[in-house]
Amino acid sequence: MKSINDLSTMEPKEIRELVKQNKLTRPTSGMAVDYVQANLVVLKKELAFDFLLFCQRNPKSCPLIDVTEPGSPIPALVAPSGDIRTELPKYRIYRHGELVEEVTDITSYWEDDMVGFLIGCSFTFEQALINNGIKIRHIEEGCNVPMYKTNIQCEKAGIFHGQMVTSMRPVSEKLAVRAAQVTSRFPSVHGAPVHIGNPATIGIEDINRPDFGDSVTIKEGEVPIFWACGVTPQAVAMEAKPELMITHAPGHMFITDVRNETYSVL
Amino acid sequence: MKSINDLSTMEPKEIRELVKQNKLTRPTSGMAVDYVQANLVVLKKELAFDFLLFCQRNPKSCPLIDVTEPGSPIPALVAPSGDIRTELPKYRIYRHGELVEEVTDITSYWEDDMVGFLIGCSFTFEQALINNGIKIRHIEEGCNVPMYKTNIQCEKAGIFHGQMVTSMRPVSEKLAVRAAQVTSRFPSVHGAPVHIGNPATIGIEDINRPDFGDSVTIKEGEVPIFWACGVTPQAVAMEAKPELMITHAPGHMFITDVRNETYSVL
Repeated sequence: MKSINDLSTMEPKEIRELVKQNKLTRPTSGMAVDYVQANLVVLKKELAFDFLLFCQRNPKSCPLIDVTEPGSPIPALVAPSGDIRTELPKYRIYRHGELVEEVTDITSYWEDDMVGFLIGCSFTFEQALINNGIKIRHIEEGCNVPMYKTNIQCEKAGIFHGQMVTSMRPVSEKLAVRAAQVTSRFPSVHGAPVHIGNPATIGIEDINRPDFGDSVTIKEGEVPIFWACGVTPQAVAMEAKPELMITHAPGHMFITDVRNETYSVL
Repeated sequence: MKSINDLSTMEPKEIRELVKQNKLTRPTSGMAVDYVQANLVVLKKELAFDFLLFCQRNPKSCPLIDVTEPGSPIPALVAPSGDIRTELPKYRIYRHGELVEEVTDITSYWEDDMVGFLIGCSFTFEQALINNGIKIRHIEEGCNVPMYKTNIQCEKAGIFHGQMVTSMRPVSEKLAVRAAQVTSRFPSVHGAPVHIGNPATIGIEDINRPDFGDSVTIKEGEVPIFWACGVTPQAVAMEAKPELMITHAPGHMFITDVRNETYSVL
């Protein structure tokens, strides 16, 4: 079995091939670190316009990096040789908003009118933060990033509406501005923070009890910084209770052929 | 009649009211200069998903700033009190890809399944260039910006496909990098240039014969800089020959309530 060190420098296509052969079913954090990873939402065409509109109206939480043609599993813009039915390590099947199954292949669920939405993932800007000397606490502590429901209302579109989910990373006060600058360069992967400082301001009651992921240590002299999170569109789609929705399992992303820096502005 | 000087500092809402009352039917360049102006495309819902997808895949030429709910003429994100049926100074009606009429009000054409797409306009970044000491030649020469068809292929989506149209502004060689930096801050209004230098590289045969707009002087020591242009989505939609499409008339934009700087990143 490949070590994570080997996987960090492997080409996206090679990793996707291992995933397709079910030789790799782990979370993708740390793999092909120079390449953009993506969240997945699959819906039937009848809901695709509303969901696309929701993403367009909420670019911070739903930064779309590719949308497949109805019926096609190929993400032509970001991985022309890829297939979103087999190349994510794990998927979740939701029926009427309820999680009914986790699978490693969705070929048997695929229908001719399905549309796949690939949404940018914060792994891209975490690499940029690291390159700027800002350590990522949940990586240091070997756990998942803490995520919180907030009181920040998303712009609704058709049946899709709800609040923004944010991820949180503690940063030393003297690097907080730098963290805002660095992530601002990447609007396609959530971009600048939505809040720095007091969790209560955005409706978070207890910073030590995230709604998703794991709690991390906030040290003396550090400030919690909140970014819009790719869990938002899934949470919102779940609320809308579509007959069938397929997503990636948390942390089990699609690895694209696009380098992180491609999405930076300036 | 208000002078352009009065109009430059008027509130968008006041200008839209004058437009609605048919007291203002001129091009909107120079009006409410601190606020974002937008190109308009109106299509029936049956084509809206494909067109939205086209915009999503071609963000440099089709930077969407708002999309109305099907049937609603209200651009809720950028001008909640606005109405796209009456508040643009002039509209063009296309049937099967042919221009059939210019009107100052589209209320009689409006149908319950129509969707309005507002697309960012380069007036926003021109103001930023001016603020950085970069003069805009077509403003100096009192004419329209020169626009050219290029060989740069857009990503297709459904029935929509075609080449990018670019606008061109000559900039002194020593300010060319600054022009690229300044406009990079505004990805929602076409962003960074797509080409600096030789027009032939992007398929432009004669820089003195633009496909749209007017020719401008390129002085000794200046380099032509090309940006993706908001005419692209109209040109592409025209190629697709939809039964009915409504657009703004060139230069006759919708003035939003959103300040230019709101769309800057960093």
